[in-house]
Amino acid sequence: MSVLVVGAGPAGLAAAHALARVGEPVTLVDKSDRLGGAPILSGYAKLIPSGEWARDAIGGMVQRVEGNPLVTIERSATVDAFEGEPGKFTAQLSNGRTLACKAAILCTGFTHFDPVNKPEWGFGTFPDVVTTTQVEQMISSGKGVRCPSDGRKPQRVAILLCAGSRDRQIGREWCSKVCCTVSANLAMEIREELPECHVYIYYMDIRTYGLNEDLYYWKSQEEFKVKYIKSRIAEVTSDGQRLVVKGEDTLVKRPITIPFDLVVLAIGMDPNVDNRAIASVFGVGLHKHGYIARASAYTGMAGTTRPGVFVAGAATGPETIDDSIAQAEAAAIAALGVARESAAQAAA
Amino acid sequence: MSVLVVGAGPAGLAAAHALARVGEPVTLVDKSDRLGGAPILSGYAKLIPSGEWARDAIGGMVQRVEGNPLVTIERSATVDAFEGEPGKFTAQLSNGRTLACKAAILCTGFTHFDPVNKPEWGFGTFPDVVTTTQVEQMISSGKGVRCPSDGRKPQRVAILLCAGSRDRQIGREWCSKVCCTVSANLAMEIREELPECHVYIYYMDIRTYGLNEDLYYWKSQEEFKVKYIKSRIAEVTSDGQRLVVKGEDTLVKRPITIPFDLVVLAIGMDPNVDNRAIASVFGVGLHKHGYIARASAYTGMAGTTRPGVFVAGAATGPETIDDSIAQAEAAAIAALGVARESAAQAAA
Repeated sequence: MSVLVVGAGPAGLAAAHALARVGEPVTLVDKSDRLGGAPILSGYAKLIPSGEWARDAIGGMVQRVEGNPLVTIERSATVDAFEGEPGKFTAQLSNGRTLACKAAILCTGFTHFDPVNKPEWGFGTFPDVVTTTQVEQMISSGKGVRCPSDGRKPQRVAILLCAGSRDRQIGREWCSKVCCTVSANLAMEIREELPECHVYIYYMDIRTYGLNEDLYYWKSQEEFKVKYIKSRIAEVTSDGQRLVVKGEDTLVKRPITIPFDLVVLAIGMDPNVDNRAIASVFGVGLHKHGYIARASAYTGMAGTTRPGVFVAGAATGPETIDDSIAQAEAAAIAALGVARESAAQAAA
Repeated sequence: MSVLVVGAGPAGLAAAHALARVGEPVTLVDKSDRLGGAPILSGYAKLIPSGEWARDAIGGMVQRVEGNPLVTIERSATVDAFEGEPGKFTAQLSNGRTLACKAAILCTGFTHFDPVNKPEWGFGTFPDVVTTTQVEQMISSGKGVRCPSDGRKPQRVAILLCAGSRDRQIGREWCSKVCCTVSANLAMEIREELPECHVYIYYMDIRTYGLNEDLYYWKSQEEFKVKYIKSRIAEVTSDGQRLVVKGEDTLVKRPITIPFDLVVLAIGMDPNVDNRAIASVFGVGLHKHGYIARASAYTGMAGTTRPGVFVAGAATGPETIDDSIAQAEAAAIAALGVARESAAQAAA
């Protein structure tokens, strides 16, 4: 009998490893045939704040569980039914297998905001309006940052923060937490690859919180000459030649219209589109914004509304990779507690 | 032989509980005679984001370990020497006791920024310039928010963000991560207690990241009519009657001078003043800003530069209570891994 870990992104990989390390068998289920979650499947480049390549950092976490005899991996599978109580759950997988498990950890992550839901920012209309994820892929593939329309090197790049975040008009009332730092990082990557390229970041507030302040915000300005414009974006259009970002510079209260070759939307972290189904299968509650709800942090950071079912990482809201890993390891020791208690009861 | 946990704030309390729950004995050492760390010793009011009173939330965590037979508590004690290797360390305590331990977790927290180091903001000069911590105490004591000079109810309160954060002039290059949300929360508390009182928050950027956006930033403006002023503060003076906050409104690029009854400095999270000594005793590295340095997150979120010695919470940088708890539970399973490995080696 094992602990069920659902989702093999950074959180799920960390939870599985942590449990196996203390001798607890794990079954790790992922809907994809490839492990690693968003950083691997979406081809992220260098991660914040480590600066390590996603394929090395998260790839290393994948290898660690793939080689672990205590971790059984079920690829291309979902959990279709989940019954029972702490210490004796039964999970029915989509591949037909049935699993007895002592506890479950939901590491089911998030869904990237789809910017077609913010049409006035030009995604889907203009080929040179792209997402941060696409720029990550340009960098991680080694092809470099280019305009999709014709493959040219952009001379002017705008990164628009809060695409799908802090935006009540489109039902995204949350801040996605990582985009400011991710964008500052990408801006520096672009400037490093294309030293002649001007990079502007349009923002409402810069949220490079904690130790990211000097490492990203200050460094991007001082060493990499990235320019920050506090603004409200009205729309992204085209003058026939180049993209045009129109908005209001909120520091000088003036409309600004600036041409760019490439516009990058810093897309936020939506709740996983499957969260309603996941909550239904596992019998756990959802947060009002659609993330998986936490129980009290003071009891233990990993609790959901259902005893024996734990949660970690971006399943609970916008989250960094590092915090996702910490939360997953917290979920691991919580699940271990349930496993040990049930073993003690069975022996008694 | 136990796992040594140093510091009994939220992180240390969470680590001790998590280990005891899976059957691992813990020795919890705190330099104070009272457990609970900053939230208890500094008398915090309602915590973010739970809204629970610190004395209930963290007090409950204290009770949980005090009643646990697997947790040995050493109060008013520090660790003066620490030798050995993973699985067989020896710790020498200031109370004369010597402890054999398999692993150690540093949950040694932070030091509140002392605003006498920012003299132009008036702390120490004017009695009605106070810190967020003092306002927490006014609320948690039940005495209410009053001007220290004469005990009157303030009619106008200014909260100045980034006191000891994001300030290169005084060697604080980091953002303290929690102050924006804590301040929005305190502003709402003040407005609730004193509905006639006007509350202004002076800010550079509002960093109510993640799910704190609507819960604190929007709610404080829309429901509680807290006013936000984007500005650079020049100085806090007095006109003989009231305090005067002078600065530049950076949204309209104009100098602003506004009188207040009470000025609250949102003090940041300095590295623990003892970090140099702690790092020396435990043989661990420090981050360039003086926090305890982490090893790679991808290996496990709790590693320091020394195998078998782990770290969690604000010891590593400005941190929320919730993330501190998650990191502590992550440290607990990492320490458990070391403990189990050493037990297996001893048995072999």
